[in-house]
Amino acid sequence: MNDRLEEIRLARLALGWLVEPGNRAVYRSVSRHGPVRVLDGLLSAGLDDRLRREAGARLGVADPRALAEAALRRAERLGARVVIPEGDEWPRQLEDLRHLGEGESAALERDVAPPLYLWVRGPWRLDEALERSVAVVGARAATPYGEHTARQIGYELAQRDWAVVSGGAFGVDAQAHRGALAAGGLTVVVLASGVDRPYPVSHANLFDRVAEDGLVISEWPPDTDPFRHRFLIRNRVIAAATRGTVVVEAAARSGALQTLRRAGQLHRPAMVVPGPVTSAMSVGCHEWLRRDGVRLVTGVEHILEEVGRVGADLAAPPRGPDHARDGLDPIRRRLVEALLRRKPLPLEAVAARAGVPLRDAMRLVPGLVTGGFAVARGAGYVLAPHLLPGRRPAGSAPTGGPVSPAERA
Amino acid sequence: MNDRLEEIRLARLALGWLVEPGNRAVYRSVSRHGPVRVLDGLLSAGLDDRLRREAGARLGVADPRALAEAALRRAERLGARVVIPEGDEWPRQLEDLRHLGEGESAALERDVAPPLYLWVRGPWRLDEALERSVAVVGARAATPYGEHTARQIGYELAQRDWAVVSGGAFGVDAQAHRGALAAGGLTVVVLASGVDRPYPVSHANLFDRVAEDGLVISEWPPDTDPFRHRFLIRNRVIAAATRGTVVVEAAARSGALQTLRRAGQLHRPAMVVPGPVTSAMSVGCHEWLRRDGVRLVTGVEHILEEVGRVGADLAAPPRGPDHARDGLDPIRRRLVEALLRRKPLPLEAVAARAGVPLRDAMRLVPGLVTGGFAVARGAGYVLAPHLLPGRRPAGSAPTGGPVSPAERA
Repeated sequence: MNDRLEEIRLARLALGWLVEPGNRAVYRSVSRHGPVRVLDGLLSAGLDDRLRREAGARLGVADPRALAEAALRRAERLGARVVIPEGDEWPRQLEDLRHLGEGESAALERDVAPPLYLWVRGPWRLDEALERSVAVVGARAATPYGEHTARQIGYELAQRDWAVVSGGAFGVDAQAHRGALAAGGLTVVVLASGVDRPYPVSHANLFDRVAEDGLVISEWPPDTDPFRHRFLIRNRVIAAATRGTVVVEAAARSGALQTLRRAGQLHRPAMVVPGPVTSAMSVGCHEWLRRDGVRLVTGVEHILEEVGRVGADLAAPPRGPDHARDGLDPIRRRLVEALLRRKPLPLEAVAARAGVPLRDAMRLVPGLVTGGFAVARGAGYVLAPHLLPGRRPAGSAPTGGPVSPAERA
Repeated sequence: MNDRLEEIRLARLALGWLVEPGNRAVYRSVSRHGPVRVLDGLLSAGLDDRLRREAGARLGVADPRALAEAALRRAERLGARVVIPEGDEWPRQLEDLRHLGEGESAALERDVAPPLYLWVRGPWRLDEALERSVAVVGARAATPYGEHTARQIGYELAQRDWAVVSGGAFGVDAQAHRGALAAGGLTVVVLASGVDRPYPVSHANLFDRVAEDGLVISEWPPDTDPFRHRFLIRNRVIAAATRGTVVVEAAARSGALQTLRRAGQLHRPAMVVPGPVTSAMSVGCHEWLRRDGVRLVTGVEHILEEVGRVGADLAAPPRGPDHARDGLDPIRRRLVEALLRRKPLPLEAVAARAGVPLRDAMRLVPGLVTGGFAVARGAGYVLAPHLLPGRRPAGSAPTGGPVSPAERA
């Protein structure tokens, strides 16, 4: 990465420290003048008054550039990186947010601008992870029915190589992630706190697991607390990042319904799973199902029907990893092809499936792990997630496995 | 009733013996030439060949007029009557069926013409009973959730003085009737067999109870068996008689969905109660909820929103019974006004609520029962059902209580 890009990254981080995410005035100014000039303007009082008022509370308290640099150093230790619109990994669909809330009251639609940047933990390129993704959100106080349904949908989306995107809450969010993980799939947690600040705290292990096989992302710098209003700001990212939003269980005023509303505003499919009319946890679902444009879905078939429609004119998912595999010698290639995506196979089984002597498998498979083609799991091995169709790990070249933050920097 | 009307009634009954209900060729011929001439033509070979082919199987087997007369005599013993389009009680909305299936394939839409007549058991005028009515239909093999929901909807419809209309099956149908009965409301069973042929047999008591407080109706003469195809023919009457159809639980190919389809074809609200996506008994519901024009309802508020919309331009429900009450002397009137519609009150409570000495209540209330204003139930008395707003008992004059079939003849 060149110095110019690093300067932009630091300026964006500094701006993000001065204002909360989603600020439309700052976003517009950055779109017009670029982040470096906007930051300079704010710090030197050279910019228009309105913008200074937006950032006023924090101006002069500390040096935003120094804070941004400290945050970056900390992030490196955490294995996190900062993805910015000027870089390769930026998911372009987030820019759809720039039209959101236009013409609506300022109070309601203040915090809906596209993010200035995203903090990311995990081995995937952010843009590719989100390319075929569905948001699965819903009640924290989910019933066993809601938890089962969310887990099932997460599992089946992953089975069909769609990524799951959700918050990190109890109930539906967590079960959707767990379903995707159980299927060996890619799942993305979008936090309303720093990527090092698990909330709820008891989900720290879940988020760590997601950061290994999927992504944990946030608009807030490390160490940020999950204040209440941040969840609503965060929801627009979940809606904008994905091809559609599914709500599984929602009480009458559930925050999940705000994500659904955002999806509709962004012209992405707004989908709802019904439930018993006797359940308070489905009241919000049914209320929204009675509105125009909201689609009832009972499972992944229906969901893919909706998001598939949107993506019908898309190119086929990228199949980069095939090239990586093409570079292997025939025996290693057969070993890789013998791996399953979800079920770990012991070395004996891999050898048998590949038709390769066990001693060759014992010698070669560890190298395939180092090379990023296989992953050790339990007492066996699975196919590395980036070798699934349509997935490439973070980093530009599709030839290696997940790379460390140091390599990426 | 005059002789001309009796001749028409007999001719219609005889035609109904010659062809199954819903026959469009016979309906059209009857509309053009009248039932007496059509019957004469069929019996004397004076009518077009097509019609004779329709009735062919039964022509010459017996004398249809004699059979019709025998059926009428039998019906009188059963306390049933025959309601015909030429009479006062005919529900005009059934004629909407004449446009049904036009332009569709003959095989599919053969049996959809309006009924030639209806057999009726029960104390209400058929047209008035159906004026504010909703069909509540669904799975025979309903789950406890479906049964609970059907009963609740039946109960709440009755509480709001809407009549329930359904078939006589186990599960949703029976629970909808039971809910309406529990609320002291009016419910209508539409059978696919003779009104003296309860099906299922174990519902004989339920149908007898409905025939006391509501109506049991059928297009088939007494003694007719409920053959399978008759349920589908019957369903169009349920859809056409009511202001809207609600499906509570339906498996993928449930007959209830045919009633829903008929309602939609008739431009009446087609409503569906959702359920858990994990329940096979809601698969048909969800499938239909994904179609355009089908409305999700979670309870009676939603249902009345739909059917109320249709009836927004209706006159206020008839309040005939008020006139009947107006004819009473002040003490009797206070006693009647002290009665509740559902909860039986002992004489002491009636007297106390009315502010009438107990000895006067003991003397006068039995006369109010004889006069059709009160009904003895359990250890107390309730308001006679026809005194509820919008209901008048069968018979033209709104001054008396339910009348016997003999009085009606």
